Amino acid sequence: MESDLNQSNTWYRIKDLAIIHKKPTPIQVVSVSYPKRSAAKITEAYYNIPSTTDYCGVYKGSYIDFEAKETQSTTRFDFSLLHPHQYKHLNQVLNHGGIAFLIVRFTRLKLDYFINMVHIIEFRSNSTRASLPLEWIKTYGLAIGFHYKAPCDYLKVLNQMMTKETL
Amino acid sequence: MESDLNQSNTWYRIKDLAIIHKKPTPIQVVSVSYPKRSAAKITEAYYNIPSTTDYCGVYKGSYIDFEAKETQSTTRFDFSLLHPHQYKHLNQVLNHGGIAFLIVRFTRLKLDYFINMVHIIEFRSNSTRASLPLEWIKTYGLAIGFHYKAPCDYLKVLNQMMTKETL
Repeated sequence: MESDLNQSNTWYRIKDLAIIHKKPTPIQVVSVSYPKRSAAKITEAYYNIPSTTDYCGVYKGSYIDFEAKETQSTTRFDFSLLHPHQYKHLNQVLNHGGIAFLIVRFTRLKLDYFINMVHIIEFRSNSTRASLPLEWIKTYGLAIGFHYKAPCDYLKVLNQMMTKETL
Repeated sequence: MESDLNQSNTWYRIKDLAIIHKKPTPIQVVSVSYPKRSAAKITEAYYNIPSTTDYCGVYKGSYIDFEAKETQSTTRFDFSLLHPHQYKHLNQVLNHGGIAFLIVRFTRLKLDYFINMVHIIEFRSNSTRASLPLEWIKTYGLAIGFHYKAPCDYLKVLNQMMTKETL
């Protein structure tokens, strides 16, 4: 998933369509050694829980922010896969006029979906369910296609969504 | 500088003014050990050269992207302090309708400046100089003030700039 998205983002930059990058993984460095004549070497560090999402950037002047998740499930997307920090962050992005969404890969079904956070927030305000049913995702999400240079070609559906919204 | 900006960004989020975060430092992990009953421990890793800038986010619907640098100089800002990748990235952001700028702290002068990338690109297209003279920065940049909750209160000058541009 990450590799497909990195490849897609690189392709979008090469074609000058959008400037979207993966953020580095947050790591807390505890100790570093400085060997002579070579680069600083980190000898003790730990993975931190991310405070935001993995991807952000700019497309047609809009702030774009999203998180990508994979699931083995064939029937639903569990909210437990999304950190509460990430959910809050995506909500804040929407409130400030950015575009926020999730990309969910159903690995067993070989399906990728683009889900606008607007719909997810609406869903959660009307339901206490701990997951999004696949049937709901098929209705409110957009299926992401494949381009040989962009294996997860989400920009195409993002563009559809943005065009539809401004009609 | 980093600590002042993190504190300012936290304050902006608390006041719900803007959603701007520092990106994690890019680190290349070489080896990880998995001690029993405790978190994965990174035992060998190296700092990578950043491919983008340190800060990005959303303010009033606009994509915001900037890099912050400190200099000991009292007369100029050397372009060598900015990685070529970062310069290119800020330029791309502008081309896609985002807002891109530099924050330069003159540590000895105790002065922080906000410099719109638009002006820097113009400067470089007209000059072969390897630095921005302080006098030029005083003309084209905006001095950043201090707020007791936002020790580098750049949002105020960003807002001035955005308001002026839309007049």
